[in-house]
Amino acid sequence: MVKLSGATKTSRVYLDNCTTSPTDEEVVRAMLPYFGEIFGHPLSVYSLGQEANEAVERSAELIAKTVNARPDEIVFTSGGTEANDLAVRGIAYANKSRGNHIITTKVENPSVLRICEGLERQGFRIDYLDVDEEGFIDLDQLRRSLTRRTVLVSVMHVNDEIGTIEPIEEVGEILQEQDHKVYFHTDAVASYARVRVDIDRMDVDLASISAHKIHGPKGVGALVVRKGTRISPTMSGYVSLNPLRPGTENVPGIVGFAKAAEMAFGDFEGHANRMARLRDRLVRGIEERIPYVIVHGPKDGRRSPAIACCSFRYIEGESIMLHLDLHGISVATGSACATRKLEPSHVLTAIGVDPEVAHGAIKFSLSWHNTEDDIDYVLDVLPGVVERLRRISPLRPGRP
Amino acid sequence: MVKLSGATKTSRVYLDNCTTSPTDEEVVRAMLPYFGEIFGHPLSVYSLGQEANEAVERSAELIAKTVNARPDEIVFTSGGTEANDLAVRGIAYANKSRGNHIITTKVENPSVLRICEGLERQGFRIDYLDVDEEGFIDLDQLRRSLTRRTVLVSVMHVNDEIGTIEPIEEVGEILQEQDHKVYFHTDAVASYARVRVDIDRMDVDLASISAHKIHGPKGVGALVVRKGTRISPTMSGYVSLNPLRPGTENVPGIVGFAKAAEMAFGDFEGHANRMARLRDRLVRGIEERIPYVIVHGPKDGRRSPAIACCSFRYIEGESIMLHLDLHGISVATGSACATRKLEPSHVLTAIGVDPEVAHGAIKFSLSWHNTEDDIDYVLDVLPGVVERLRRISPLRPGRP
Repeated sequence: MVKLSGATKTSRVYLDNCTTSPTDEEVVRAMLPYFGEIFGHPLSVYSLGQEANEAVERSAELIAKTVNARPDEIVFTSGGTEANDLAVRGIAYANKSRGNHIITTKVENPSVLRICEGLERQGFRIDYLDVDEEGFIDLDQLRRSLTRRTVLVSVMHVNDEIGTIEPIEEVGEILQEQDHKVYFHTDAVASYARVRVDIDRMDVDLASISAHKIHGPKGVGALVVRKGTRISPTMSGYVSLNPLRPGTENVPGIVGFAKAAEMAFGDFEGHANRMARLRDRLVRGIEERIPYVIVHGPKDGRRSPAIACCSFRYIEGESIMLHLDLHGISVATGSACATRKLEPSHVLTAIGVDPEVAHGAIKFSLSWHNTEDDIDYVLDVLPGVVERLRRISPLRPGRP
Repeated sequence: MVKLSGATKTSRVYLDNCTTSPTDEEVVRAMLPYFGEIFGHPLSVYSLGQEANEAVERSAELIAKTVNARPDEIVFTSGGTEANDLAVRGIAYANKSRGNHIITTKVENPSVLRICEGLERQGFRIDYLDVDEEGFIDLDQLRRSLTRRTVLVSVMHVNDEIGTIEPIEEVGEILQEQDHKVYFHTDAVASYARVRVDIDRMDVDLASISAHKIHGPKGVGALVVRKGTRISPTMSGYVSLNPLRPGTENVPGIVGFAKAAEMAFGDFEGHANRMARLRDRLVRGIEERIPYVIVHGPKDGRRSPAIACCSFRYIEGESIMLHLDLHGISVATGSACATRKLEPSHVLTAIGVDPEVAHGAIKFSLSWHNTEDDIDYVLDVLPGVVERLRRISPLRPGRP
């Protein structure tokens, strides 16, 4: 990528991959035949339909392998939000007779939190686990929260704001020890293709994944549902290939999802190592060049290689973001989906960051396509942006 | 299109456009920039996000015009099934305090029927209107069915199997005369771009439409929701651009939907006239060349130009379909989504067709891309197929 050091934007440095990511050209190329040629309805028994059906099945096989699941455990949805909705409400409704208690965390993606709030209005009881200053849940609090009425625990795999990898395997073990079945869902949207998602090792019953965060197309995701899971559909309609999700399959989208997964997992370790190096280069560079910076999230290995979140004190994340945009750099402030809210990020609040500091937070999220040049360009531009904004800030250090 | 009269398939004659249709090349071309270039999240306030946002807004404007609605009345969904689900369940849940009675018809698309069955299990009371032998509902039965507890009437605009155009305007008038608000939803998936859908003139509050039946992409549809309609979301999650539908917008899909609509409505009258001529040519040709044929649906102007449904007595529609497939012709048998069921079509049953005749039904559905050559090729091939199948049929006329 060619970059300018001046204010003119020619090409972009994109560091908001956990919000959405560009669809790879190869992915689009893989999708193309399914628009105008192999365009049949997967339920049609004539050849055009069967070819579409086979494409969906091949895609399910490929994606299943990446999470150590079986092809028939992949339920395609219109995205991560729908996968979360199907998981949480689907389990809640199907297991109502056994209990109405659900445990989740204060740092889930807003989609899971909204789903849980909806269930509360319907008479379900939800416990929201606290997290420590690095974003980790407390396994003892989880143990204490479990009751005989608990039917579901939903804990995200990787926090999409600060990168914390939650102790999913340990949660899985605790749930296995219970004398009644407690289903376990993990929102793996932020971890998929960045941190290993292995539903067997993690002992989860359900995992949500999404295509458009891994250079696949928007409009397609999946819920991995272990065989034997008691779950209701949450959308009504005529059943298509999968009884859990009615409606004509988005065949090109599904094929694109599989291609993106294939490319992402072709060199999973290499990608993860490179992202970790870039993240470290970015965070170190920021800490070296910019004063009054607070880096959020874990410092050790229990964090995603793809996420760095820093607060720049005395200024607003929103202003930094817009100034970086003028330099062709895309980053997020606050929660991925919450960019139009003015409240501080619920995740930063949950880890105890004070509102003034939370408002100055910028979230960088990487993919395997980012380069050292991307990072170095950000490190060239960011110190000047922060300095200029601080110069006009009423909060700047030393101001009376 | 080049076609062979022999059994070798070179290119296809596609007459199953009400099940799904090929995405136009121009539509795909319009989508392409939104995969890898203008790929931002529509909620992101930086420029890439804003460009995506504007694309969604432009698409909503364009689609709104085609149904005489306002852009903010377009709620994008993952398809027609989700639009139907949002309409029917969304109204049912939001208006529960006023009543639990819903009226629909026996000939709705299976998606609406399954949604209603789900609501019945939740304590809603559903009346399913009968239809006459041409598929028309009885307005008097509708009047008699309305109660003070009725909150929703859902009547499809065009029957996707036999082409009947239901008297939507008259239904709208009847509902306007009620002394309490009864919401009116029409499933316009089979009519959109084939029969004029004007939500003002039709007096509907909600209309479902879908992209992949009008040469747009799979995985995107819309529910038109009149301003002021009291409706709940049916999917939970973090609200994106529209409070009724959470989740990241399928931006390329939405852009493709709008492009397909633009192309379909560029010459709406021309398309409709051509489809009607082709339909007549097909039906007349079949009646002239093949004995023991029963043509279903209305004979007058109150039918879609795009649909023809015929039963070929003494043989199975399934066999005809598979034989036509070998000749490169795609058609449907029974209901669009029901091709894996062995029961006769619920629509043909509702219009009083006996099961043996219903099993011999083939549904042809046209788009503006079909040509006289397509029809003539079918008329070349079909008589031979029917004759051969009848020759080996245990039911054939004259057999003891």
